[in-house]
Amino acid sequence: MGGTKIAFAVGDAGGALRTRRRRPTAPSGRPEDDLARLLDDARQVVAEAGLSPADLAAVGITAPGPLDPDRGVVLSPPNLPGWHEVPVVARLRDALGIPVFLENDANAAALAEWHFGAGRGLSHLVYLTMSTGVGGGLILGGRLYRGVLASAGEVGHAPVEWEGEPCACGQRGCLEAYTGGAAWTRRLRAQAPAASRVVSLAGSRDAVRPEHVVAAAREGDAFALAELARWNDYVARGIVWLVMALAPEAVVLGTIATAAGDALSLDPIRAQVARHVWPHLARSLRILPAALGERLPYLAGLSVAIEGLRA
Amino acid sequence: MGGTKIAFAVGDAGGALRTRRRRPTAPSGRPEDDLARLLDDARQVVAEAGLSPADLAAVGITAPGPLDPDRGVVLSPPNLPGWHEVPVVARLRDALGIPVFLENDANAAALAEWHFGAGRGLSHLVYLTMSTGVGGGLILGGRLYRGVLASAGEVGHAPVEWEGEPCACGQRGCLEAYTGGAAWTRRLRAQAPAASRVVSLAGSRDAVRPEHVVAAAREGDAFALAELARWNDYVARGIVWLVMALAPEAVVLGTIATAAGDALSLDPIRAQVARHVWPHLARSLRILPAALGERLPYLAGLSVAIEGLRA
Repeated sequence: MGGTKIAFAVGDAGGALRTRRRRPTAPSGRPEDDLARLLDDARQVVAEAGLSPADLAAVGITAPGPLDPDRGVVLSPPNLPGWHEVPVVARLRDALGIPVFLENDANAAALAEWHFGAGRGLSHLVYLTMSTGVGGGLILGGRLYRGVLASAGEVGHAPVEWEGEPCACGQRGCLEAYTGGAAWTRRLRAQAPAASRVVSLAGSRDAVRPEHVVAAAREGDAFALAELARWNDYVARGIVWLVMALAPEAVVLGTIATAAGDALSLDPIRAQVARHVWPHLARSLRILPAALGERLPYLAGLSVAIEGLRA
Repeated sequence: MGGTKIAFAVGDAGGALRTRRRRPTAPSGRPEDDLARLLDDARQVVAEAGLSPADLAAVGITAPGPLDPDRGVVLSPPNLPGWHEVPVVARLRDALGIPVFLENDANAAALAEWHFGAGRGLSHLVYLTMSTGVGGGLILGGRLYRGVLASAGEVGHAPVEWEGEPCACGQRGCLEAYTGGAAWTRRLRAQAPAASRVVSLAGSRDAVRPEHVVAAAREGDAFALAELARWNDYVARGIVWLVMALAPEAVVLGTIATAAGDALSLDPIRAQVARHVWPHLARSLRILPAALGERLPYLAGLSVAIEGLRA
């Protein structure tokens, strides 16, 4: 369940998806109506799989934070208007009669990449979603680590420049303020030279987006190359901290890295990280693009169900 | 087992110490001789408790890293000359006939403060030892988190200034390069004004140590106040990262904070951290001085034994 789209699937413990569907979230402002509609869709996707809810082992739900996974309550995500303290888990469990588990989207994505994607078989994994915002999830010692109030992994809001650029979260210098898609887009529109390839690819300065930087950099545009180097550098700063503090086997980068495909090589980030962490940690570290692509939302929900049953 | 001193104790699961002893480590350069002497001392401290090795449940050893806790091998700590790939665990287990566990000193200190000290009863705890160097240990989800090659928790070498001051570890800008006792002492001796109270308390510029800063700051000396503020600021930077990434219930500061007593209030650090993390994390966070004082080395070993038996 995202702010713009909501995805449903029936799958098995091996990650095979039997049926799936996706529609705009279009929150009505009335959570009860939204939940009723969500339940209808859930029942339909189960029916399409030739099953009834009683045939399922569990339901896994992912939602934007803040939420309380222990109480199964979505608190008040900025992108779900009208949703405050909505007891999603109780509502679905009562309606479907099976166990229901709730997890925030970054943690669920980390679980999915760990169960079925780039982090398969590892014990210590940091997942970073480099999208409009920058989120993260930590798999440490073979399980999801949530911390106090399920708030662990918010590395998008750890400082990469002390007292640096203001961030949408209210703090300054956050990794997200330098590498998040929204912040980067604002910067590009303010700073892209009119004559740069970035602007001509976008059509106008106000239409510039990060993917134009990637495309223009591929053509050798100086502004785009500098911007991409800056982005890589800040991503590397965040990763260096995580590697020194957590000694993970892998850092998996989701969304931007995946969406930009080959054009966005992770090699400059790998090289920068390797220069800034101890050699034995650099040798054992892998920095990988996320592997699940458009299957991620479905497998995230599935992973939450699997993890919930395991706990 | 430290580079300068080695401590032995017999204790119980509740943290009560029956007998203890301490002597200079004085490594001979021949690990076999060092181990034989260590075994003699261990047997004596057991005998003093009116016990024989067979009465013990386990032995816990702490040593400076790098070491491999899974293989029970001390690799080649810079402060244990001649020690390379020394199989401490196998040697003691064969000699004493009971389970033996090995852990690096920062992790063992984290375990001790968690079992018996400031972190008692918590599930998510970051321990930082602010001493000559800066080390750390992570208790996450109610257990010690070690990461790859048991290297997690090396937050002393995470960057607080990107490409900043050179650090003894070979990297730049590490937390230790700004807040470690050795680095701070070098800085103070290079920069303390001859007329400052710091220098008059120390007797000469070359004798200045961090405790003179604490004492001179208490008397209102401007240089000392600025230095202390700078130290607090960098410690806070490190803590902010850890709080945003790991959402711990507490950060426990060992050694310097404890040794300086009341003079070194943690309030400036607490205030600085609270300004730089999200309000709900600030509210649930405690920043605490370590509680075990001179009992730490004994309880660290005891905690390693307890944790080893529990795993």
